[in-house]
Amino acid sequence: MPIPYGQGFGLKENRQTNMNAATGHNPLFDPFFDPRAIALMGASSNPQKWGFRILANILAGGYSGTLYPVNPKGGTLLGLPVYPSLHRLPGPADLAIISIPAPSVPHALTQCGEAGIRSVIIISSGFSESGPEGAAREQAVASLARAHGIRILGPNTMGVFSAKCRLNALMPPLTPRAGGVSYVSQSGNLGVQMLGWGELRGVGFSKFVSSGNESDIRCEDYLTYFAHDPDTRVIMAYVEGVSDGRRFMEAAEHATRAKPMIVFKSGKAPETRQAVQSHSGSMAGSYTLYRSAFRQKGIIEALRTDTMLDYAAAFLHYPLPKGNQVAIMTRGGGWGVVTADACRDKGLALATLSQETLETMNRVLPPYWSRSNPADLVATLNPEAFPVCLEALIRDEGVDGIIALGAESGNRAQALADKLQQMKVFESTEPIDRRGGPEDIHLAMDLMHAYGKPVILVSGLSSYAKAVAHDGRETVLFPTPERAAGAMAALWRYSRFRRRL
Amino acid sequence: MPIPYGQGFGLKENRQTNMNAATGHNPLFDPFFDPRAIALMGASSNPQKWGFRILANILAGGYSGTLYPVNPKGGTLLGLPVYPSLHRLPGPADLAIISIPAPSVPHALTQCGEAGIRSVIIISSGFSESGPEGAAREQAVASLARAHGIRILGPNTMGVFSAKCRLNALMPPLTPRAGGVSYVSQSGNLGVQMLGWGELRGVGFSKFVSSGNESDIRCEDYLTYFAHDPDTRVIMAYVEGVSDGRRFMEAAEHATRAKPMIVFKSGKAPETRQAVQSHSGSMAGSYTLYRSAFRQKGIIEALRTDTMLDYAAAFLHYPLPKGNQVAIMTRGGGWGVVTADACRDKGLALATLSQETLETMNRVLPPYWSRSNPADLVATLNPEAFPVCLEALIRDEGVDGIIALGAESGNRAQALADKLQQMKVFESTEPIDRRGGPEDIHLAMDLMHAYGKPVILVSGLSSYAKAVAHDGRETVLFPTPERAAGAMAALWRYSRFRRRL
Repeated sequence: MPIPYGQGFGLKENRQTNMNAATGHNPLFDPFFDPRAIALMGASSNPQKWGFRILANILAGGYSGTLYPVNPKGGTLLGLPVYPSLHRLPGPADLAIISIPAPSVPHALTQCGEAGIRSVIIISSGFSESGPEGAAREQAVASLARAHGIRILGPNTMGVFSAKCRLNALMPPLTPRAGGVSYVSQSGNLGVQMLGWGELRGVGFSKFVSSGNESDIRCEDYLTYFAHDPDTRVIMAYVEGVSDGRRFMEAAEHATRAKPMIVFKSGKAPETRQAVQSHSGSMAGSYTLYRSAFRQKGIIEALRTDTMLDYAAAFLHYPLPKGNQVAIMTRGGGWGVVTADACRDKGLALATLSQETLETMNRVLPPYWSRSNPADLVATLNPEAFPVCLEALIRDEGVDGIIALGAESGNRAQALADKLQQMKVFESTEPIDRRGGPEDIHLAMDLMHAYGKPVILVSGLSSYAKAVAHDGRETVLFPTPERAAGAMAALWRYSRFRRRL
Repeated sequence: MPIPYGQGFGLKENRQTNMNAATGHNPLFDPFFDPRAIALMGASSNPQKWGFRILANILAGGYSGTLYPVNPKGGTLLGLPVYPSLHRLPGPADLAIISIPAPSVPHALTQCGEAGIRSVIIISSGFSESGPEGAAREQAVASLARAHGIRILGPNTMGVFSAKCRLNALMPPLTPRAGGVSYVSQSGNLGVQMLGWGELRGVGFSKFVSSGNESDIRCEDYLTYFAHDPDTRVIMAYVEGVSDGRRFMEAAEHATRAKPMIVFKSGKAPETRQAVQSHSGSMAGSYTLYRSAFRQKGIIEALRTDTMLDYAAAFLHYPLPKGNQVAIMTRGGGWGVVTADACRDKGLALATLSQETLETMNRVLPPYWSRSNPADLVATLNPEAFPVCLEALIRDEGVDGIIALGAESGNRAQALADKLQQMKVFESTEPIDRRGGPEDIHLAMDLMHAYGKPVILVSGLSSYAKAVAHDGRETVLFPTPERAAGAMAALWRYSRFRRRL
């Protein structure tokens, strides 16, 4: 039985909407990720202050709700009237974002309580991450919030992003790409960096939250929310330490039954756990325990920060393979060997090609081609080779997935043609066959869709995974075969986990 | 005693020119890497043929010598007269490049012998990589060459590049960046791919050779040549298998005493050795044996293809550290933890910062900064923080090298300023401090030069290591801290090897 996944591969079947099925709403999280009106406390005209930068980002992001800058100085800011206090707002706000010095936060919270705002993001730092005094302040703020029935995101957070209402309440200036990944990060920097990389690498986000010190809402709460959120297709988490391991595992269990969940765990070495504590005030815990829990719950662990994005791109754009038998198609033997090594290293196997496949490929390849897997196209310049061989491989029943190298080589031929035309000597030659490149990529996407098998494309022309759109679908090209093999292995690990449920 | 290395760090002291010290010439390799005149046999007007593409590349590359296209059809090609045979050339050639079908190669070789050409590159494939018939053909060609006193590069090679005479005799259309790396690759694809990546990533090449089937000149011969070549500062090799292990180790021993040597070994898994054989006809051998030999001889092994380039960039642009005590400077705590984990993972240690260093940093950082290593600048917007802290760290005698994250963050502030100006609301705010970014990078380069300690910069803004030039020097920014830690570890491993000599 095939397990459909990825874009156009039966996404709807995987959606779970256990939360408030009658209304489709989530009373805890909607004000944070889909607020109707926001009061920004600490809005500032000074670009060196976060209260300015967040304001600017919300405006630049095109937030679909209403924004009320709040600052005792009043006046106007970036074209908006500034309100001296929450009591003077012209209408109700369901979310407050607080970006003022830590000692003033309790007073601001009291104001929120009085104004009926029950959801507050505390950007400010100077809480438990900064020592005993800050920890005491954080406890006081938490008690105060509870007394007012206020839920807190943060403190010490870099903010949130939500594609639904185009809310870009983040500190650094970036414009996240909208898409299917929802991401909770216990580091603001690791958070916004992934959003920034996502812009380049074809990974779009539905929701992002920098969870900060988690004085109230915790990493595992966001995970549970994402698990049930119909707009979230892939979950991503950067974890330094969790305070309630059982709830984390329960959240993960819900999540991975419905959709893939990618985790990067930091604070791995005993020596680095001290750094975790002075960063987010949490305990990193034993990495060995985390790893075994990840495996047990079907969580895909990324071992490097950039592979988080690789895996997210793979889950967004590729179907899950039914098995681990991979065919490698390459334009040169060396890369074939490297890719085969990488596949073996990551628990993938090399598919044995059928006689029919070999015969089809014989028809378009020089007689000295490898006749085995990796399928080396021996640098043929025949533009038929790539499409014919790719289709032969994907039709082969012994092949669960394909890693195809040199997908953009056709573009290289075009680069040569362009260069020669610049040299003005081109007229003396025969015309260059400009086929290949985009057509090869589009064909791979069409075949992947038709057969439901992943075809991971590698292009050495780009230095990072990049997005290509075609016929209403999108794919990403990987920059190295090692990263493609890593992505294929992640797809396979999750597929195997789902099959065993 | 400091071990100087890298750009501006006493390169001259590391040069060894054992070869023909009287003349500075190498009679075997000069015709391949600095030929005065080249006969291109198989020059073609058909862009689907390599005989056209190599011709076009040599012309587009601006080769400083004389090029004679040879083809029985005669006529002109890309503005040059075509000579029907070697006998008709108007002057002597010291190198022939043969790009014709394999069965015709023996005849072409005989022509070379008669014309007095003693150095021949055989591009053509269809030799030992293609089975028993091809292997017999290769042996016949080798005997014929010996009879004529001809040395052969190849067959089944993708060609050579040499910055000295701007010789770009390669099959794919690319323009390698000139620089200090010399690279021998047993895969043409792995070769030209690295040249292509080098264009993007600040890695320039002095010489490149795709060694092909190595019927005559072998990988280890090129390594010995590079070891003694004064233009080569860093050696890089892609190795599938070597036929004479002892000579390889001798070459490595010469090389690593003089300059760093980076090797990527493929055919690691037993299953992939078959693929090696059908690619280059060589035996991959036991990977365990290779690894222990690499360690023993001070060879820096790259475990992923893209880390080859990372290491090359590091050896080109950074001095060697005297020890493994690393200081990490970060703008956010999460990345600090990730970097610390990566350093520990790669055998680096976290330096203990001196009291003086901490006090200097106290002066520019908020009171709640980490006061330890990793030094977390806690996202301060004070533009003095980066330069002051960086200088404090590099002055610290307990610090052997620095990994500094967020070097381009100043640019992000500029991006925000630009975005707001586009929104035409900027006039209502105070001016944005645009310091940081380029200035921080230039400062890091100046400090590195002054103190002779590596300062590896990480910028999440780019997705690959990229080059920055300043004041006649150049550096590269790394895209992730994991890759920066890998580069630092490579510098340290080689430094330790040199110290133990």
